[in-house]
Amino acid sequence: IQRIAWDPIMAEKAGYKHFMLKEINEQPRAIRDTTLGRISLDTGKVFLQEMQITAEDFRNASQITIAACGTSWHAGLAGKFMIERLARLPVEVDYASEYRYRDPIADPRAIGLLITQSGETADTIAAQRELIAKGSKTLAICNVVGAAVTREAQGTITTNAGPEIGVASTKAFTAQLTALFVFALHLAQVRGTISSDESKQLVEELSRIPGKVEEILRSVDDQCCQLAKSFSTARDFLFLGRGIHYPIALEGALKLKEISYIHAEGYPAGEMKHGPNALIDETLPVVCIATKDPNDPSSVLKYEKTLSNIQEVTARSGRVIAIAIEGDDTISQLVEHTIHIPQAPELLLPVLEVVPLQLLAYHIAVRRGCDVDQPRNLAKSVTVE
Amino acid sequence: IQRIAWDPIMAEKAGYKHFMLKEINEQPRAIRDTTLGRISLDTGKVFLQEMQITAEDFRNASQITIAACGTSWHAGLAGKFMIERLARLPVEVDYASEYRYRDPIADPRAIGLLITQSGETADTIAAQRELIAKGSKTLAICNVVGAAVTREAQGTITTNAGPEIGVASTKAFTAQLTALFVFALHLAQVRGTISSDESKQLVEELSRIPGKVEEILRSVDDQCCQLAKSFSTARDFLFLGRGIHYPIALEGALKLKEISYIHAEGYPAGEMKHGPNALIDETLPVVCIATKDPNDPSSVLKYEKTLSNIQEVTARSGRVIAIAIEGDDTISQLVEHTIHIPQAPELLLPVLEVVPLQLLAYHIAVRRGCDVDQPRNLAKSVTVE
Repeated sequence: IQRIAWDPIMAEKAGYKHFMLKEINEQPRAIRDTTLGRISLDTGKVFLQEMQITAEDFRNASQITIAACGTSWHAGLAGKFMIERLARLPVEVDYASEYRYRDPIADPRAIGLLITQSGETADTIAAQRELIAKGSKTLAICNVVGAAVTREAQGTITTNAGPEIGVASTKAFTAQLTALFVFALHLAQVRGTISSDESKQLVEELSRIPGKVEEILRSVDDQCCQLAKSFSTARDFLFLGRGIHYPIALEGALKLKEISYIHAEGYPAGEMKHGPNALIDETLPVVCIATKDPNDPSSVLKYEKTLSNIQEVTARSGRVIAIAIEGDDTISQLVEHTIHIPQAPELLLPVLEVVPLQLLAYHIAVRRGCDVDQPRNLAKSVTVE
Repeated sequence: IQRIAWDPIMAEKAGYKHFMLKEINEQPRAIRDTTLGRISLDTGKVFLQEMQITAEDFRNASQITIAACGTSWHAGLAGKFMIERLARLPVEVDYASEYRYRDPIADPRAIGLLITQSGETADTIAAQRELIAKGSKTLAICNVVGAAVTREAQGTITTNAGPEIGVASTKAFTAQLTALFVFALHLAQVRGTISSDESKQLVEELSRIPGKVEEILRSVDDQCCQLAKSFSTARDFLFLGRGIHYPIALEGALKLKEISYIHAEGYPAGEMKHGPNALIDETLPVVCIATKDPNDPSSVLKYEKTLSNIQEVTARSGRVIAIAIEGDDTISQLVEHTIHIPQAPELLLPVLEVVPLQLLAYHIAVRRGCDVDQPRNLAKSVTVE
């Protein structure tokens, strides 16, 4: 008889050392499941179920008002770019804890969008009530079926990421980005701001994202582990990005802050000259998101501006880790370390970019001996104010 | 014959050790001069000269779109609260370096507002051109008469702060806040969202601000110098605030970052539970802006929420420095250090709150031996991208 040592917690973790690492690796499935039944590869059409907000409402909308907290707020900031670009509808994004006390100006034609993993975040639910009181219909992006936020919403897009145990959100975030992309496409189709060819192409590109995330998980994990060796003793980090990559810089900084207790901060790259440059010296690692969609001139323009921001950092001896697309050798020659990810359309790049940032934070926290799944001072769902 | 040692630079500095300290002390005059000829204490009326934007334009405006960089962007964030509350007109605030590449949705009824000390900030001028191209009229708040930004604007509110030499902006910032308050009042009067009694009262309160800043300069300088002794070796700082006090938290953090190279970061107090709490331990100083206008229920409500955020920090052994109004003993009993400032209406408190934060940053930088007036890696005006 052979005895098998069996650890129920390890079984739960499916062989991974931490829930967070397991959840990072579940992202291809989480993203795929979030698109499931919502997109048609044949027609490029997007379908949203459980939606009591009519096409008419979406056509008449004056704006989308997003309220969220923490990681979900970062998803909202990225969603602003998706919705404004595809559906040409203005988007306002606010911290839920700020929005609820702001006495915002009533606009019943504004549609509220609440983003929350748990669906129970106290400030986000209070923001939803404020929106409803001002006459808005509200929509929820939420990972828990039947959660509080969905009960008061006229529509829900469930992120099918599955239960998330690690306090630092990973798969719920990429699922939120996916849900936001699907929503932006739907809005664009209803409002007639996108051609069916473009729709078909973007839906196809979306369907390739899970495979690309798998590829990243395979290709960059070792490199992130090596980088953690060099940078785990850093006292501070900066994360930079422009446009839709700026919220990903914020998210990369937040992951590191949450689980490694290193003071990491995200900035729009263009703001560096207005103050933060003063922090740069030869001890400061600066993570720069410098990806581009070569087929998109506005993406290439922002990339070039980011390149010059990177040169300012290296000129001041800052140590740059760049996230760039495959085949970008210009960057590799400029900076100390480059992490390559596959190419994708500008609005889908965030889903890919964040994966190496999650892995970097994870490996640094492990090296520092931090309690990755249960960082100090934090709870998974913030159900009190 | 007695020889007098005469140093032309010291003469320029009017006896102060640094331009920054001189400029901090010039704020009562800078604020007063920015209201000069623009407000009537008798009638409560606000007058804006050099304005080709008509009352009709202001009445028909759909929103105010603010674009700015660095410290001026913080002024813009505070201005959002002033304009939305007094004139009930929605305000969007964006980093100029982001706005220009965002391809914002055209809305000719949106009025652009550019804030820049020098009037030559490259990104801000590019944002102005984008606004004009989209059909908007633009207004400038600028400290230099005849600067580039004013030449393309339909209106200018000059901040009469006088030349600012220190790279870290101080008197230009409080003058910007003053100009924004005056503008918000003007907008409210034109749009009929404020009674003449309320106007008169707010204009009166505004006229008392220079005296209150003088009082702060006298009463808190020693205390800030003492605090610098205890905290100058800190590696990190957090600055927290809610509502209109959040941009002041950002500005306090930026001052410290710019001139002392300490990694300081500002956060809306309500976001702490969603990640940044992980940074708190017994070595981390946390500056909390916890002021209130006792006559304003919404101000008191936010103050109470901030109090509970403070308790979370102290429960985790963070070292709190609170900014509170005179007579607030509740706070002094909760935290290690309290800096008291005079009472004022909620929308004017920022002008007072920022003064101790400037002094704190100044004294810490001096103790650390930093080049206060010319911090590393920074230039006074950012005339390139």
